[in-house]
Amino acid sequence: MYSFKNDYSEGAHPRILQRLFETNLKQFEGYGKDIYTQQAVELIKKKIGRDDVDVHFLTGGTQTNLTVISAFLRSYEAAVAVASGHILVHETGAIEATGHKIISIEGRDGKLTSEEIEAVLKVHIDEHMVKPKLVYISNSTEIGTLYKKNELVKISKFCRNNNLILYLDGARLGSALCSSENDLTLNQLANLVDAFYIGGTKNGALFGEALVICNNSLKEDFRYHMKQRGALLAKGWLLGIQFKELFQDNLFFDLAAHANKMAVLLREKLKDLGFSFLIYSPTNQIFPIMPKRLIDELQQKYLFYLWEKIDDNYSAIRLVTSWATKMEAVEAFVRDIKALL
Amino acid sequence: MYSFKNDYSEGAHPRILQRLFETNLKQFEGYGKDIYTQQAVELIKKKIGRDDVDVHFLTGGTQTNLTVISAFLRSYEAAVAVASGHILVHETGAIEATGHKIISIEGRDGKLTSEEIEAVLKVHIDEHMVKPKLVYISNSTEIGTLYKKNELVKISKFCRNNNLILYLDGARLGSALCSSENDLTLNQLANLVDAFYIGGTKNGALFGEALVICNNSLKEDFRYHMKQRGALLAKGWLLGIQFKELFQDNLFFDLAAHANKMAVLLREKLKDLGFSFLIYSPTNQIFPIMPKRLIDELQQKYLFYLWEKIDDNYSAIRLVTSWATKMEAVEAFVRDIKALL
Amino acid sequence: MYSFKNDYSEGAHPRILQRLFETNLKQFEGYGKDIYTQQAVELIKKKIGRDDVDVHFLTGGTQTNLTVISAFLRSYEAAVAVASGHILVHETGAIEATGHKIISIEGRDGKLTSEEIEAVLKVHIDEHMVKPKLVYISNSTEIGTLYKKNELVKISKFCRNNNLILYLDGARLGSALCSSENDLTLNQLANLVDAFYIGGTKNGALFGEALVICNNSLKEDFRYHMKQRGALLAKGWLLGIQFKELFQDNLFFDLAAHANKMAVLLREKLKDLGFSFLIYSPTNQIFPIMPKRLIDELQQKYLFYLWEKIDDNYSAIRLVTSWATKMEAVEAFVRDIKALL
Amino acid sequence: MYSFKNDYSEGAHPRILQRLFETNLKQFEGYGKDIYTQQAVELIKKKIGRDDVDVHFLTGGTQTNLTVISAFLRSYEAAVAVASGHILVHETGAIEATGHKIISIEGRDGKLTSEEIEAVLKVHIDEHMVKPKLVYISNSTEIGTLYKKNELVKISKFCRNNNLILYLDGARLGSALCSSENDLTLNQLANLVDAFYIGGTKNGALFGEALVICNNSLKEDFRYHMKQRGALLAKGWLLGIQFKELFQDNLFFDLAAHANKMAVLLREKLKDLGFSFLIYSPTNQIFPIMPKRLIDELQQKYLFYLWEKIDDNYSAIRLVTSWATKMEAVEAFVRDIKALL
Repeated sequence: MYSFKNDYSEGAHPRILQRLFETNLKQFEGYGKDIYTQQAVELIKKKIGRDDVDVHFLTGGTQTNLTVISAFLRSYEAAVAVASGHILVHETGAIEATGHKIISIEGRDGKLTSEEIEAVLKVHIDEHMVKPKLVYISNSTEIGTLYKKNELVKISKFCRNNNLILYLDGARLGSALCSSENDLTLNQLANLVDAFYIGGTKNGALFGEALVICNNSLKEDFRYHMKQRGALLAKGWLLGIQFKELFQDNLFFDLAAHANKMAVLLREKLKDLGFSFLIYSPTNQIFPIMPKRLIDELQQKYLFYLWEKIDDNYSAIRLVTSWATKMEAVEAFVRDIKALL
Repeated sequence: MYSFKNDYSEGAHPRILQRLFETNLKQFEGYGKDIYTQQAVELIKKKIGRDDVDVHFLTGGTQTNLTVISAFLRSYEAAVAVASGHILVHETGAIEATGHKIISIEGRDGKLTSEEIEAVLKVHIDEHMVKPKLVYISNSTEIGTLYKKNELVKISKFCRNNNLILYLDGARLGSALCSSENDLTLNQLANLVDAFYIGGTKNGALFGEALVICNNSLKEDFRYHMKQRGALLAKGWLLGIQFKELFQDNLFFDLAAHANKMAVLLREKLKDLGFSFLIYSPTNQIFPIMPKRLIDELQQKYLFYLWEKIDDNYSAIRLVTSWATKMEAVEAFVRDIKALL
Repeated sequence: MYSFKNDYSEGAHPRILQRLFETNLKQFEGYGKDIYTQQAVELIKKKIGRDDVDVHFLTGGTQTNLTVISAFLRSYEAAVAVASGHILVHETGAIEATGHKIISIEGRDGKLTSEEIEAVLKVHIDEHMVKPKLVYISNSTEIGTLYKKNELVKISKFCRNNNLILYLDGARLGSALCSSENDLTLNQLANLVDAFYIGGTKNGALFGEALVICNNSLKEDFRYHMKQRGALLAKGWLLGIQFKELFQDNLFFDLAAHANKMAVLLREKLKDLGFSFLIYSPTNQIFPIMPKRLIDELQQKYLFYLWEKIDDNYSAIRLVTSWATKMEAVEAFVRDIKALL
Repeated sequence: MYSFKNDYSEGAHPRILQRLFETNLKQFEGYGKDIYTQQAVELIKKKIGRDDVDVHFLTGGTQTNLTVISAFLRSYEAAVAVASGHILVHETGAIEATGHKIISIEGRDGKLTSEEIEAVLKVHIDEHMVKPKLVYISNSTEIGTLYKKNELVKISKFCRNNNLILYLDGARLGSALCSSENDLTLNQLANLVDAFYIGGTKNGALFGEALVICNNSLKEDFRYHMKQRGALLAKGWLLGIQFKELFQDNLFFDLAAHANKMAVLLREKLKDLGFSFLIYSPTNQIFPIMPKRLIDELQQKYLFYLWEKIDDNYSAIRLVTSWATKMEAVEAFVRDIKALL
């Protein structure tokens, strides 16, 4: 069974594992106070093109989201997120468990607009309601779509004018930035948001996310929050080494570009075969609509998620590619479909 | 300015204040361990017709809701409520502050259906999502509507079949039970839900809510939860005395019936004058739709909430009556409208 | 049975109940936005001699403590309190339930010193430990002792030099300020601490505490915290009316002075009879040591707490007097002891 | 600089890294639902000698402790721990951040006794105080001491008789079980406690702790708690593979035995040189007392913690050995001391 189920089905890119191998028996200072972590921080700052950001390494996405949001908000302040946002749906109430409400916005194509945020502000007007304070967005989104520069600029301006924190979940930021339709640089992104994380787990690392705090007022004592939430890894250098390797040349972006390339290949081939899609997604997740019979057959040989029932005969499936997806697997998948049509 | 803004604009029914006066200099055991609290508990049990329930007195509605829900749920379990539910909108994230997500259901007329709850269960299927465990309903609802017996029976059955706790917010339970359209007895209600509270603040008491826990498995150590949330009043007998007075004869229901009578009077007179309503509500809140010009004029003499803009010229307002609403005030209000038409 | 068990065994001073009576059927704006609350705030500011403080009225002590401490602290920050501090022992983990650790200091006579706080700071040095941020003291203390001006000045200076918030629990502040040994004015106290509350429940009110926030940086959005913790009373004017009555002349202090006078009377009479005391306390709680046999006899006619076992034959008891304690009761108690010796 | 600072200064045992290498490009199901995790669970059950336990893999110790304790307790229930307990001192209030108080017991040699727990129960008697419900112990303790079988049996019996949960933090369980003075088997330990974890981070793994839940009533829905606390690793097989390797033969115990052997060697050599120790510790942490001057010199070449000042001239230092400590490093350290004496 070959899996298109998600982008964290394999270990790490071999270069990363090689570095862990080479450094394995060296002694390091714990909790991210080692030389590799320091170097990784510097490399990420350089890629971002700003020296005034704080970078912290955490183990996973939910952990990062809950630590960040609880650190940034006072108890009566709330996050705002689109209905399909990961923190709203797939983190078992992790944010609420730290005491904060998430206000859900319908959005479009998995994305928020400033108009919708404004509508939320307009109804949250006094102390009988939570105070919306942090806007959570994901790029690429949970359904593979992308924030274009003008969209993000508009949201960012709105947030700054309204004293809202803009936080971007970058679990799949690599795929977003390397999409052929992306028009945002990492530097622009860092200037538009207050904090974001660069996902390693889904783009070549064994595990790990690099949190970047851009807004000075949010930096203080962040390591206390990490420790309190169980997010300060004892052997912190394991994260430093991985991110150093990802960012010392272009590896992080090369891997994301490969994932996207495989997704484009899948998409184009399926389009050629006449399939339509639930949504247009220019990153590493695609959502072709297929007849139930074909899906059943494909599930004999491939793993993927059934995403949404369209009608009694058709469903959309989700296919996810990654840095590790093999061209041959994509080709075999297409070949198998052709044979089944 | 006469206020139709809400049902907690005056103090207590004079009989209640009289009792507080008479007992004022007596010495009592604190924290609800006094004789009056005990008598009030017994009277409420008798009115309910069940001796196997636990009754606790708390100071206010938000306090009761947050204490109850955090006591009943494990950390990853969530409440389900209709979008207009008080805990979702008007309690400043009090439930989330205790760590629990509230799942919002659209509902109809401020009420949930078992079908909608079922739909929630169907998408919350594994440990990546919260586990829906408690269904929160209000009767009467936040928009004055009523659960009919067959509706509540259906929800109750669904909850029991699916191991869900059914909790009813009775801030305005008096008005609900005394509505001409109500077909539920207090006993039936107690048999259908796992816990509910009988609102005193909005029906004749200075303050206070009587929480009734019907389900044995939810009773244990509830006073610990009360104390931890700051909900164990030092001079607990103040609550006992008030609820004793409300329930030793029919006072509680008489007061609610008066509130309803005033609302019906308002509704009928306004209907006669040709006004339509945002929603049909058979309890002590009504929502007439009026031209903006008329509203502006009325606001010179009366306090009430602007509820919802209908169009550029019309809005719905909310008029709330209570045990203390004077017939003359209702008549004057109608007279003033007539004069302004 | 006459009770010396605590200072919240009776209702309110008759003047207060009278005011509630007179205003009972008037209509008020809810949630403390009424004229009486405003007047009470102004009167308290005047008594304090500062116009730049914020005053909020809450229902009880635990509620006030948990709302204040959770509002003032970030999640990894901790409170520091003496081992006998109310928040450490008798609030069912209310502070921890909002997410904050309380660091216990041994103290002496129920009081902290700056040296002990300094010792705490010295061992809490990095992100593996909580950050001590708020110092909690009670005046009078839980065991009836008093902070003298020089003691409080020293603690206050230390806190300001070390960026610590100083919060004073004034559940029995009336008794403290009216003690013959007190050398602090309300104005001095307000200048030395960042926030404190003036206890009404234990000094003549039916219920209610007046929280005073002196430090500007702690004032923002406090009503959000109140609402979120269930501490915003719907009929807020009930609190305003009570505190207006307590502070519009000298009633609050007269009542506390009476309580102290009764305690001094008890203490002196018992001293004359040869009893010693567990601790010297110049406020409304005294702790005489008595033979077990005598205690057993007294418990036939009086209610009080057994405080601490001294040895097999002797125990300390706690006697608490209040604004409502009758001179005749004190005299009868002493007479009964004499008869039993 | 050679480090004796702690037992997590190096990566993983080479065999473990080798397994990660071999499996790196295979595809796995995420979140611990892979075959290796299943095999690791089975191997651990076999070593324990019980098939009826649940095993979960988490990333680190603080994460495990906070997830476990918040999962096992209701909100008003508290943990009890010795004053030097890791959760009390070195986890930045992680447990309190989930809402629970930890009651501190003085203990002796880093260990609790049932008598001390009983004393806690005796003063926590009603709803004004938290309810002690979980006893937290560490083996080996934070200061290197060991629970002997008779000590643990006594605590266990007391806990069962008093309906308390007994939870053992096994961050250094390997070292405890392999100490020459240990008389407990893993099976006996599992039968005496309700849950414990087997520390991988400090004994040969890159990272990871194996939580074992022995008490049936504590097992339900534990994965929900893990996800909510950010403790469900996306690439869960990384944990499975490591623990499979540690437990498929005797590797876990061999590594711990090596760490102990190195500590014994250090201890005996230092004893021969006339040094005394702060505490007698038969595991992988030792606490020799040395003159300040010697410590200063050693710090030029070695990393270790200054543990406790004895007087102006002497301090105790902490030396920690691990699976990775080299015999030559120990010998060099002793040689250097000799040269400095």
